[in-house]
Parts: sequence; C-alpha cells; structure tokens
Amino acid sequence: MKLLRIGTAGAERPALLDAEGTLRDLSGLVDDIDGALLADEAALGRVRAAAAAGDLPVLDAAGLRIGPPLARIGKIVCIGLNYHDHARETGAEPPAEPVIFFKAADTVVGPNDTVLVPRDSVKTDWEVELAVVIGRTARYLESADEALAHVAGYAVAHDVSEREFQIERGGTWDKGKNCETFNPLGPWLVTADEVPDPQNLSLRLWVNGELKQDGTTAEQIFPVAEVVRYVSRFMTLYPGDVINTGTPAGVALGQPEPKPYLRAGDVVELEIEGLGRQRQGLESA
Amino acid sequence: MKLLRIGTAGAERPALLDAEGTLRDLSGLVDDIDGALLADEAALGRVRAAAAAGDLPVLDAAGLRIGPPLARIGKIVCIGLNYHDHARETGAEPPAEPVIFFKAADTVVGPNDTVLVPRDSVKTDWEVELAVVIGRTARYLESADEALAHVAGYAVAHDVSEREFQIERGGTWDKGKNCETFNPLGPWLVTADEVPDPQNLSLRLWVNGELKQDGTTAEQIFPVAEVVRYVSRFMTLYPGDVINTGTPAGVALGQPEPKPYLRAGDVVELEIEGLGRQRQGLESA
Repeated sequence: MKLLRIGTAGAERPALLDAEGTLRDLSGLVDDIDGALLADEAALGRVRAAAAAGDLPVLDAAGLRIGPPLARIGKIVCIGLNYHDHARETGAEPPAEPVIFFKAADTVVGPNDTVLVPRDSVKTDWEVELAVVIGRTARYLESADEALAHVAGYAVAHDVSEREFQIERGGTWDKGKNCETFNPLGPWLVTADEVPDPQNLSLRLWVNGELKQDGTTAEQIFPVAEVVRYVSRFMTLYPGDVINTGTPAGVALGQPEPKPYLRAGDVVELEIEGLGRQRQGLESA
Repeated sequence: MKLLRIGTAGAERPALLDAEGTLRDLSGLVDDIDGALLADEAALGRVRAAAAAGDLPVLDAAGLRIGPPLARIGKIVCIGLNYHDHARETGAEPPAEPVIFFKAADTVVGPNDTVLVPRDSVKTDWEVELAVVIGRTARYLESADEALAHVAGYAVAHDVSEREFQIERGGTWDKGKNCETFNPLGPWLVTADEVPDPQNLSLRLWVNGELKQDGTTAEQIFPVAEVVRYVSRFMTLYPGDVINTGTPAGVALGQPEPKPYLRAGDVVELEIEGLGRQRQGLESA
C-alpha cells in the first residue's frame, strides 16, 4: 500500500494511493498514519481490505498539499557514509560499523514543501536517502530476517545538510542536520510488502533540472536489515521511528571547488524507484 | 512553581508541589504538563493563581511513582564538554563553541525509575546535568536576555552515557547516549521565576553513597543563556524541547584505571540545588 497524508501542515488527513493511482480517503477508517497504526495489524488489515474492495471514497486532491506520510514521528536515526561511492567522494574510509547521527522529528516537512537555507549558511547540501519506517518495537535484534520483520515500510527522505555547521563548527554532525525544514519526507509510506528487495532501488536527485545523484541501494555498505539490527543494539526502536539509511555519491560536498551548494531560488527534485518523487524550492530562512 | 507528574508510566497525572511542600492535584485544571501548557501563559496563570489561593486538592502520593515532569518532549539537545573541570578531566580542550549532540525523547524516564545497563556494555557512566525546558519557540535569537525569555524552567537530568558506544564505536556521540532509560528527568520542572540565577547552582551525584560529582553551574563554559541563543542559530527550539547543559567533573571516564563504571546493582543519586533529587537502581537490560 501507498499511504500518505493530505492537507495543510498540522491538519493532514490520512489517504491511500490505490493500485490504479486513484487517491482514496482513509479518514473514515483510521485517525492518522502514525506508529500506532503501523503497530496495529488489525487496523492495517482493515485498510488493506477496504483498498482491495475498492470501496474507499475518492479524494479530490487538486490543489491540496501532500504532507509527510507519517505523523508523530518518534526519532530519526541517520546512518552516515553508508554508500561505497559516497564514502569515496568525501575522502572518508568506509566505516567499520555504521555511523549514527540524529535528526529531530521537527525537521520533517512534506515532500514538496519549501526548504529553508539557514541564516549564515554557505554550505547547504542535498542528500537523497531511503527512509525506513519502523512498525514494531525492536530491542537487541539478532538477525537480518528478524530486523526486516520490524520494518513497516519505506519512503523517500531528503537529508538536507549544512556542511559548515556539520563539519567545521565543532562537535558532532547533528549541528548541521537539524535546521528547520531539513527533512522532507514522502510522498508516500510504501508498505514493506511492496518493496521486496530494498537493496535494489535506484535513487536520483536533480538540482535545477541537472542530475546530481544517480545511485542504487545496492551500493549500501550496511544494508537495511543490518542497519536495523545494528541500531537496535544501541537504542530501542519504536513504531513510528524512522531510519535514514545514507546517501549515494553526487552531493555538493563531493564536487570540485567551487562546490555548488544550494541557494535560495534553487529547486531540488528527488526520487526513489517505486517510492515516489519530491520537489522543493529553496528559500532563505 | 514546582510542577510534576505522578502515576504509572504513560498514565501520569499533573501535580504541583506547593510552597509548604504539599502535593496538589492539577488534573482538574490542566490536561498535562507539556510544551502546550508551558507556551500557554493564561493556563500557567490559572495554575499559579490556584496554587496561591491554596484551593487545589491535596494529592496523596504515598506509594505512587514520580514520572518525568514533562510529557510529549520534542527533542533533547545536549551540550558536551560544557564545564571547565569536566573538560580537564577528560583531557579535552575547552571547546571554542558549544558541542551539540542529541538524546531521543524516548530515553526519558522518571527520576527514580530503574536505569538499564545495556547488553554488552562495559562503560556505563553517570552525568548529573541541569536541564533547561523551552517554553517559547526560539529561532535565531540574538541576545542572552532574549534567550532566557524562552526558558520555561529547569529540572535535574541524568545524562547516562555508555563511553565505549560513545567514543570507540565510530561515528558521533549519539551512539552511546540513546540506550533505553538513559535520561532520568525530574522530580520537578521548576519554573524559571524560582531560579533567579541558573549559573549559581550546585550539582551533586553519588554512586552507592559515595560522592562522585560535586560541581556548580558557575563552571559552565557556555552559560544557559548563551547555550539557548547558540542552539537557536542552528535549529528551531519549540515549547517542550529540553537542553541538557553538560556535566561537571567527576564522571567514571575521568577516573584512574580501573575506571569505576556502573554495574547492575549500583545505586546512583543526584541532586541540583532547588531542583530536587533523583535515585536510580541499575539493572541489566
């Protein structure tokens, strides 16, 4: 299923994009799309049955905003340097074990919302990423199979990053990862049954129409199952938590000088195979 | 005012410790103690008036658990190496600007709840910290005065830390800061009007009755107002966000070998002048 949330920020209603590409209203069936729904197999089953029966009301989304496809996100765990080609372009050794940093849930906006270039920023960068949405509480998982059973679905995430704040201002990467609007998410939360192989998805990102990133999750150093298993050894993952699993090569940081960092007026588009497409205009904060 | 939350985990009710030390039930007046309440001056005024009038019902808390004093915490921003004496003991240079890392809100437990030593942990450490609770949305603040006007109150936080996960496992400090139960908070949220000088508070921590940390916020490299101002330049702070402002000297990491890291069975007690006292037993996860 492709689950999404439609409406103005903070007042989105749950919806479903059906197999024919028709938008259906879920608000008569579920309160919202959040961790509680993803952990509730009976409720998800009712949504699935209603979608299959084709009797959900059609939603006229003309002119309506698409919000992030998940409400009440708990935490966003991010994996750094998780693609062989991206580690090479940044001059870093491939990490021996996953690099973890955090984005706050309040950085999440809809897939086509404005992204703000922070004040005093000179190195705002892009990163297309496969986001993993957790559906079951995960503690100290042992195996890859066990890990995938805790994944509710997948989405496109834009891990917007300010490289000066991240790397040159002391401390951890979190300082350059948590500016307002720095995590566009969506358009859809695609349930895991529709993503049979998360290690075979193409990811692409364009800036002002020019292709900048053109990767595949096959290049991930630590695949999704290993990332979920690994993270669960260091912290408990809850339904509605998100893991951004890293970005492939092609970010501004990896380009020759002068590096083409983002400015107000730029337009970024990104997509992952089967998970939909985002488009953000950049504005000054 | 000293605001707190009483009851079993997930079902706490709001309460107030009045000037005479009597516990009063706030559940007839406010839904909960959270960012929405802290941002609502009218609602806070009603609580204040009811407390002054002495007509809030007495709450018999005998045998009841004290929960964390804040519900629906947004993000927890942590400041690393923020005390001159702690920077010295860890062998680090005092940072040129604040070091930022994150704890997830789901690590928060009550002040006297059990703290879990993670599986495979050999370096679980303690850190008593002054927690700052945000009451107004803060973006790009300019001055110390402006920053303090965005602080709703203060609390005791225990920034439990696993040093091997934090320092020796690659990536950022977040990996050793986010284990389950790693952020006891409370007992009270003390409103800012009762903390006239946050830079003159003593902090103490004991392990199994032995005094380990005995510091003062006067040793902070970046005082509370500067921390709030600085953080607001890199991310937006919202009502209900928390900033853990760093720990003074005396952690296990700073001791000679063999360093006395925490084990199941240990008991940690901590207190900050005017903000109350915590006591946690350690158990294996």
